Amino acid sequence: MQGMKLRINAARLLADIEALAQIGGTPDGGVSRPALSPADLEGRAWFRGRAEGDGFEWRQDGAGNLSAVLRASDPSAPTLLAGSHLDTVPDGGRFDGALGVLAALEALRTLREAGVRLPVHLEAIAFTDEEGHVLGLLGSRALTGQITPEDLERPRGGRAALADGMQRLGLTREGILAARRRPESLAGYVELHIEQGRRLEDAGIDIGVVTAIVGIRSCWLRFVGQAAHAGTTPMPDRADALLGAADFATRARALVMARFAPGVVNCGQVCVAPGAFNIVPGEARLALEFRHGADADLDAMESALLALAAESAQRYRLKLEVEPGERCAPALMHESVTAAIEGAAAELGLSHTRLLSFAGHDAQVMSAVTPTAMLFVPSQGGMSHNPREFTTPGDVVNGANVLLHTLLKLAF
Amino acid sequence: MQGMKLRINAARLLADIEALAQIGGTPDGGVSRPALSPADLEGRAWFRGRAEGDGFEWRQDGAGNLSAVLRASDPSAPTLLAGSHLDTVPDGGRFDGALGVLAALEALRTLREAGVRLPVHLEAIAFTDEEGHVLGLLGSRALTGQITPEDLERPRGGRAALADGMQRLGLTREGILAARRRPESLAGYVELHIEQGRRLEDAGIDIGVVTAIVGIRSCWLRFVGQAAHAGTTPMPDRADALLGAADFATRARALVMARFAPGVVNCGQVCVAPGAFNIVPGEARLALEFRHGADADLDAMESALLALAAESAQRYRLKLEVEPGERCAPALMHESVTAAIEGAAAELGLSHTRLLSFAGHDAQVMSAVTPTAMLFVPSQGGMSHNPREFTTPGDVVNGANVLLHTLLKLAF
Repeated sequence: MQGMKLRINAARLLADIEALAQIGGTPDGGVSRPALSPADLEGRAWFRGRAEGDGFEWRQDGAGNLSAVLRASDPSAPTLLAGSHLDTVPDGGRFDGALGVLAALEALRTLREAGVRLPVHLEAIAFTDEEGHVLGLLGSRALTGQITPEDLERPRGGRAALADGMQRLGLTREGILAARRRPESLAGYVELHIEQGRRLEDAGIDIGVVTAIVGIRSCWLRFVGQAAHAGTTPMPDRADALLGAADFATRARALVMARFAPGVVNCGQVCVAPGAFNIVPGEARLALEFRHGADADLDAMESALLALAAESAQRYRLKLEVEPGERCAPALMHESVTAAIEGAAAELGLSHTRLLSFAGHDAQVMSAVTPTAMLFVPSQGGMSHNPREFTTPGDVVNGANVLLHTLLKLAF
Repeated sequence: MQGMKLRINAARLLADIEALAQIGGTPDGGVSRPALSPADLEGRAWFRGRAEGDGFEWRQDGAGNLSAVLRASDPSAPTLLAGSHLDTVPDGGRFDGALGVLAALEALRTLREAGVRLPVHLEAIAFTDEEGHVLGLLGSRALTGQITPEDLERPRGGRAALADGMQRLGLTREGILAARRRPESLAGYVELHIEQGRRLEDAGIDIGVVTAIVGIRSCWLRFVGQAAHAGTTPMPDRADALLGAADFATRARALVMARFAPGVVNCGQVCVAPGAFNIVPGEARLALEFRHGADADLDAMESALLALAAESAQRYRLKLEVEPGERCAPALMHESVTAAIEGAAAELGLSHTRLLSFAGHDAQVMSAVTPTAMLFVPSQGGMSHNPREFTTPGDVVNGANVLLHTLLKLAF
């Protein structure tokens, strides 16, 4: 196979990352480029200029997804996608998203400069609003036909923000709904991303090969006891709802660490009623969320956690009610793509390990319609969604080279 | 001593309780007569009519405290007070407060009808705003000189509510501050009240002899960790502030039950930040309150609870900050008065036990200036501040007879 000695142009890629980070750049070195904001528009224009300046075919679909395209000779060839997103959270960092898009563009440039002719069209794609400033994963959901007219009626950021943003980008409802591409036209999707955690750094490993993006389940646990006078009610007679919630929260952590690692659990909010110094809590609502890489794991966690909640309720003489919350299914990465990533890393002499992604990504959406996988490079200190987000130049270049060779393996 | 066979008129007392319960009565049999409200005014007028109709001297002081007075022959004799309050919490019951005032009035009637001449003036007193709808314990604090101009500037119910109520009752700032009576003019204070708890009922005991009204200390415990992504942050790396608060809440209960009974502890509110399903809590503020009968007990509880909080914080890698809250000192009842209550109960063939009052009462204020004690009668099911508040006619009559004979013992 041609090109195992092929390497991306490190200086050019690092310069692109630096240049893009100036757009929406904040004084502390971070980046604020929320989707559909003026800064996002400027970033998108910069990307177009870069792609067209390099002579690639330019494409913007009805959902605002942006692509630089390297055409195969055969017009009917399927398209292999690589990319991520250009938008950031407010006061975010310069690597989350941008790395995957710019590394994909650099891979295209490297292949064209080397005169490599692929049997697939290759597209470096930037998806719209991955972070969900207005409507989470808008671009990849539209491209895969996973967005409905109803979704457009109740966007997370509000209808006014969506309408404003659509007008700014020249998008229409019809255009978004028509952005779907036929699965048969796609050859796969690969996304390079920073880990946003410390596992690679802690283990001293170069490349994380994502086997699944975790599913998320959440619910409100409502512990119901009896509000009572905090002076006159003897301790043994109380049915203190907060104690049930508290007992559950500490034991849920221990349970998940003991039986469900690397799955995670969080109790992120608790609401107590009546809520006064001198009244024994009659009700405590606890926001429970847990994540794991497979439906079977999530099912087992759910059973164990709800049984534990019932036990905590009983221990403090409380009733327990469960108010179902959102469920997001895990997204399994495709073995053919993870194997390609592992092969590329190995051939480049880079250490690698399989892991779960505990954050959401466009890859979870893409995996529903085309063979998909992700690779991670280390995040220093695990920092992300934060101006202190940092990945070393060496890791950036490693990731881009693995992406390049993964694409070559998938294309041939 | 005269009159050990003396008994109050049970039917008359029960009829008074029934009649007063109609004023501010709610459809479910409860009473809403918050201090200074129109219903409270009506209740106060009814009490005046009852006292004057029975031919007692009537007295209203500058703080709106109401008294029926049975004069001794010697005008310079000191005054022995018995009473409680006529105001209720919103949607309260018919016994809390009313019982002590009406039993005191009935004691006066019984003594006068029996032709008993006492060496002290005897006063059946109803204190203003015991429940603190506008300014907690206003009446007894004014009578004992424990209210300041500053207190009148920041009443718990707000300045407008206090101003409105004062105008309705014809009170003035000057009048309230001048309502103080010289301690030398007082011979003591006895208050009959429902227990508002289940200890007497559970033990099958007729009369509770209060030895102290508990002191109350409170503070906010602020557990500070690190807000983090609830997906990407591995469980062992988290510093989850809610877990520290939760660990403390459950262990504080166990600690107080094991080492400080009958003292009580309550965590009545918790505020989590940022407070979202998908964010590990970075901060949790917990409202801590604890009560016991003596300063030494409160000191020991405070040390033990704060040490426990520090331990819970350390266990979850958190910082702990303590924001001091209100402190209310315990009020010791006077041995001469508790002994009189015990003697009266014993002579009437009623079982009795010493206990702490875990709720506040006018007696805690009065105890600062004159020999004071309280007696409790059973509350069915411990219910109070609730339309279901109930004390049996038998217990009502027992309490009133013990009050009568306690006053006789104290007078001679």
